Amino acid sequence: MSGNTLGKSFRVTNYGESHGPAIGAVIDGCPPGLELSEQDIQFELDRRRPGTSRHVTQRREPDQVEILSGIYEGRTTGTPISLLIRNSDARSKDYGNLLDTFRPGHADYTYWKKFDNRDPRGGGRSSARLTAPTVAAGAIAKKWLAEHVGVKIRGYMSQLGPIAIPFKSWDMVEQNPFYAPDLDVVPQLEAYMDELRKEGESIGARIEVVAEGVPAGWGEPIYDRLDADIAHAMMGLNAVKGVSIGAGFDCITQKGSEHGDALYPDGFKTNQAGGVLGGISSGQAITVSLAIKPTASIRTLRPSINRAGEAVEVQTLGRHDPCVGIRATPIAEALLAIVLMDHCLRHRSQCGV
Amino acid sequence: MSGNTLGKSFRVTNYGESHGPAIGAVIDGCPPGLELSEQDIQFELDRRRPGTSRHVTQRREPDQVEILSGIYEGRTTGTPISLLIRNSDARSKDYGNLLDTFRPGHADYTYWKKFDNRDPRGGGRSSARLTAPTVAAGAIAKKWLAEHVGVKIRGYMSQLGPIAIPFKSWDMVEQNPFYAPDLDVVPQLEAYMDELRKEGESIGARIEVVAEGVPAGWGEPIYDRLDADIAHAMMGLNAVKGVSIGAGFDCITQKGSEHGDALYPDGFKTNQAGGVLGGISSGQAITVSLAIKPTASIRTLRPSINRAGEAVEVQTLGRHDPCVGIRATPIAEALLAIVLMDHCLRHRSQCGV
Amino acid sequence: MSGNTLGKSFRVTNYGESHGPAIGAVIDGCPPGLELSEQDIQFELDRRRPGTSRHVTQRREPDQVEILSGIYEGRTTGTPISLLIRNSDARSKDYGNLLDTFRPGHADYTYWKKFDNRDPRGGGRSSARLTAPTVAAGAIAKKWLAEHVGVKIRGYMSQLGPIAIPFKSWDMVEQNPFYAPDLDVVPQLEAYMDELRKEGESIGARIEVVAEGVPAGWGEPIYDRLDADIAHAMMGLNAVKGVSIGAGFDCITQKGSEHGDALYPDGFKTNQAGGVLGGISSGQAITVSLAIKPTASIRTLRPSINRAGEAVEVQTLGRHDPCVGIRATPIAEALLAIVLMDHCLRHRSQCGV
Amino acid sequence: MSGNTLGKSFRVTNYGESHGPAIGAVIDGCPPGLELSEQDIQFELDRRRPGTSRHVTQRREPDQVEILSGIYEGRTTGTPISLLIRNSDARSKDYGNLLDTFRPGHADYTYWKKFDNRDPRGGGRSSARLTAPTVAAGAIAKKWLAEHVGVKIRGYMSQLGPIAIPFKSWDMVEQNPFYAPDLDVVPQLEAYMDELRKEGESIGARIEVVAEGVPAGWGEPIYDRLDADIAHAMMGLNAVKGVSIGAGFDCITQKGSEHGDALYPDGFKTNQAGGVLGGISSGQAITVSLAIKPTASIRTLRPSINRAGEAVEVQTLGRHDPCVGIRATPIAEALLAIVLMDHCLRHRSQCGV
Repeated sequence: MSGNTLGKSFRVTNYGESHGPAIGAVIDGCPPGLELSEQDIQFELDRRRPGTSRHVTQRREPDQVEILSGIYEGRTTGTPISLLIRNSDARSKDYGNLLDTFRPGHADYTYWKKFDNRDPRGGGRSSARLTAPTVAAGAIAKKWLAEHVGVKIRGYMSQLGPIAIPFKSWDMVEQNPFYAPDLDVVPQLEAYMDELRKEGESIGARIEVVAEGVPAGWGEPIYDRLDADIAHAMMGLNAVKGVSIGAGFDCITQKGSEHGDALYPDGFKTNQAGGVLGGISSGQAITVSLAIKPTASIRTLRPSINRAGEAVEVQTLGRHDPCVGIRATPIAEALLAIVLMDHCLRHRSQCGV
Repeated sequence: MSGNTLGKSFRVTNYGESHGPAIGAVIDGCPPGLELSEQDIQFELDRRRPGTSRHVTQRREPDQVEILSGIYEGRTTGTPISLLIRNSDARSKDYGNLLDTFRPGHADYTYWKKFDNRDPRGGGRSSARLTAPTVAAGAIAKKWLAEHVGVKIRGYMSQLGPIAIPFKSWDMVEQNPFYAPDLDVVPQLEAYMDELRKEGESIGARIEVVAEGVPAGWGEPIYDRLDADIAHAMMGLNAVKGVSIGAGFDCITQKGSEHGDALYPDGFKTNQAGGVLGGISSGQAITVSLAIKPTASIRTLRPSINRAGEAVEVQTLGRHDPCVGIRATPIAEALLAIVLMDHCLRHRSQCGV
Repeated sequence: MSGNTLGKSFRVTNYGESHGPAIGAVIDGCPPGLELSEQDIQFELDRRRPGTSRHVTQRREPDQVEILSGIYEGRTTGTPISLLIRNSDARSKDYGNLLDTFRPGHADYTYWKKFDNRDPRGGGRSSARLTAPTVAAGAIAKKWLAEHVGVKIRGYMSQLGPIAIPFKSWDMVEQNPFYAPDLDVVPQLEAYMDELRKEGESIGARIEVVAEGVPAGWGEPIYDRLDADIAHAMMGLNAVKGVSIGAGFDCITQKGSEHGDALYPDGFKTNQAGGVLGGISSGQAITVSLAIKPTASIRTLRPSINRAGEAVEVQTLGRHDPCVGIRATPIAEALLAIVLMDHCLRHRSQCGV
Repeated sequence: MSGNTLGKSFRVTNYGESHGPAIGAVIDGCPPGLELSEQDIQFELDRRRPGTSRHVTQRREPDQVEILSGIYEGRTTGTPISLLIRNSDARSKDYGNLLDTFRPGHADYTYWKKFDNRDPRGGGRSSARLTAPTVAAGAIAKKWLAEHVGVKIRGYMSQLGPIAIPFKSWDMVEQNPFYAPDLDVVPQLEAYMDELRKEGESIGARIEVVAEGVPAGWGEPIYDRLDADIAHAMMGLNAVKGVSIGAGFDCITQKGSEHGDALYPDGFKTNQAGGVLGGISSGQAITVSLAIKPTASIRTLRPSINRAGEAVEVQTLGRHDPCVGIRATPIAEALLAIVLMDHCLRHRSQCGV
């Protein structure tokens, strides 16, 4: 059984390894007629790209995307769109000492148990580098949803380790490398990250993603609910350990009168539901939270085992993100876009197809 | 597009409405040779059944399951297993006044926007009654996994509204109607629920589900990860607003050295990962948490609108669960069983098929 | 892996065994708003029903369908439609002597090799009885396509063993038990069948199915072409050994100028393509031919083996169709309806959804 | 809805247009551990390649495949295998005059009706050039099946227009550009083709494909039968108008005693079934026949219409295959390999996984 395809109507098939020749995605199901250029996709890839600030991995990848199919005279034709990103800065030697060892918190051990072999170069397929094709595919979904339905998808970081980040404005989000919605907190975040790097440590984070303009009526009653598909996509992202919608885990202590959003002739006035009721969109903003674990790659020596099952100590050198959460915002946006596009196509009268 | 099927290799298709003639499921993909009787399934259905204590809905449903296919001489044949549960105690008149009105926090509004019509009797398809076929299907998965792989799936309530429930023992879980793992807390839970019923209110809860004995190697690297599929199944359950694995949202404030579970020659000693690394099972216990919202059906008058968009006030009478979380434990166990069985079948050498 | 579901957007999941408690289907993806009663479905089931003439199996089955879900106040709601048909006249003893033996031309041997066990009563799941749920599901697709798109699906027998049946009129088709489009040939067909029964033999047949009114534009370019999905559905029908579209195998000797249907401002004037070009409907009638093998159940003694691999002789008594082709017409119509409905739903602007 | 993926367990997603930058496929589900190089795939691509004799299109394409992912140190890792073939000899001007016109027998008209736009360069996605990624993917399936199960898949041409080609030997098949199993007929075939080219005409053909060594037990009882999936794959190939298994359309005139293959302790002695009984492989050779229509691209002037619906005359110049059947043999082999691999993976105990 495979498993590398996301979506049923808008299908994204992801391929590639961190240090193989290339990574990419084939998108099957994009409707014809969308104006689409490599620049449209590049814009989102650049938001995710490594090496853009001192707080993320220093691997230098241009992440230049090439569209191989599905476009004619600047517009989608309705046939599969193949996206190719060549790997360029692949220093495999950085990982050479890890061939035989399982890094704690990494997928090394589980890949080996599943496949009996693995590509150890840069984590192979388990590398966060494989989120680039997802971002590229999401860029297409995002553009379609914006132009044909008026959906706006944005995200931000709401917490970095112990530092909660209050929401001040969407404008601030793109003005700092953390996707923090409050510029005043940024110096504190930078100081925290500088300290962390010195320690050779990593840290978790919390990301919020919001989709506005989704019409009521998207989703299915049972199993393939809109919120279920969002949870699937988000929990499928490297390092995510928790997903919630609307009030999320706060609903545990809420009473019914507090949680249930009242309806008024001019719409809802609260959004505890996070835009989904009974698995179907309500027309309110869809609000999603993600818990992102600290990167497993740390310089600290850790106890582990090798393939023979013997005790060893592991230290991960190479170039890594001390907080994968920092680059997670554009990826989470892309995933939400893909899920929404997938459901949009099942409700074509609302989707403009 | 449909959406009422869970799983790819072990496929559960769910049908029915709360007050229609029957509810049920067709399970496609169960391997041949499993000893299976209606009693096996009934046992799990009875754990979920309404009307068993004063803290849950007083609707009386025997929930008697009939196996229509897929069994010959007491064993599965490998062909689809069709399970039928007749609805008996369907007092549709209880809901008559809600035909034209949307209950806040319910799927009434979103179903109407999606389908342009809906079966209002007892919430129709959005009723929690439709979790019964899921539980029945899960009973089959649970039995297979226990007998062929040695997987043990159990759950409990860890919080009811403001009351945290410490874990004392698995034995206690089945000895009280809350699935609480500490009998000492039960009187406090009962008092809380009695008060709540008087108020005509409802409350949220937190459920934990654990699968022990899952071999390392189940799951797929990208998108159809084991944790992603678990999140999909759980978030697809009525009233769930949050799902987490292992450390869950606590990982936000964890450092890498704290979160990453070290490997030792005799196995892991911590389980921050919750049994899944890089989307693939690690051989540790798989630990899942669910946040369950308070029931939307409350006696309190709430502002809402009718189909004409005019302001109305709604009060839900009928028979309801003031805390759907109370009956959620066996359902969450069933969902985890279905997802694990689905992945088991993709790794047949480990699954005994 | 499962396999008992037909369609991607209009999904029919089939369950049951010939002599188990019941057979049926769950249809997921039927749009809301279709007027639908048990009578609508019964009409098509009665066309397929056994025991209606001396030329088909004398098994007496009322084949009474019950709708268990998906309907409210006489209309589909958009949720799964569950259809139940109880088995009543199940004389299992007729097959008792075959428990250990593989009947030549039957699926006995292959089921045993695949599943390691099998339900031998009446062929279990391999019985042609399992086409009843397909016909029931097809009745829904047929009704939708007729009412919402104006598609008309009809079929007839064009050859019975050595006897070619010329096409005279659609009216004649429903006036004889063979679905022959020429009443003058019927006496010849009856005499042939009477002779065949005396011999204890069976015979093949050829069926034609035609869908008129399908708009241009249904189908996908590669792999899931409309003709590919038709071939899949038809070859999935018991006893079918060949499927063709339009000119079919005659195209082997055709030249390009003869085969390619010229386009004129007022439409096509020939239909060698059978209504499909490049996998996509052209707006012409879709024409499909099926080759149906002679029933494997014959009274003649045949050499075979038992489960121990020893030589035995087998004679099939019980009640059988000496020509399964006779009852194949309504089934083939149902399959074409399901495939067309499945593609219709992917082109909603044309489908009225 | 998409549609460009073949298979459920071994999934081949095909992308590209005849004159776009590249064509290719992503294969998801190939088990780990298979030795695989670009040479292995190139061998099959070269068998299909255009420009290899005067009887096929003179387009010169090296069809050089590049493996982008899924391989580490010469072996598959179990992750998706991405295959890239650059288009090099794309003379788009050859087709310029056809931008506005629909060529009879081509998909021009139906694509335009479906997508509202199309890539007219070389037929865009409807070009037979898109069979190259299928052949490349099939090469992997073929190699796996040969090495792990001992399955041998071969094909040949059995008829070219009016000329029937008797089967003499497998050895002869690869010694002539027609894949004819009788070298003595080759001069006649060459003379026929030379004459045809002078006329500016095209012709149909019949292809046989045979898989030996398939164990009994592959396939599913209903709908996703092995023969149904074979029919789906084959009818999904450009220009195929008919597919049959075993006796095929000859079964129409067969009696039961003639068609049903008797079983003996040392196996079957006839193979009317073509290796499939009740949708499941019987252990005999799987034998498939295809009817391939004459190429639609002919030099003869044909009546047609343009996008405005006005009458025009069309003549197809460019470089074309006067008999697409000539290059169809390796493609049909690839499709059969993909379908068998897909079913193999659902029966892992027999598949060596």
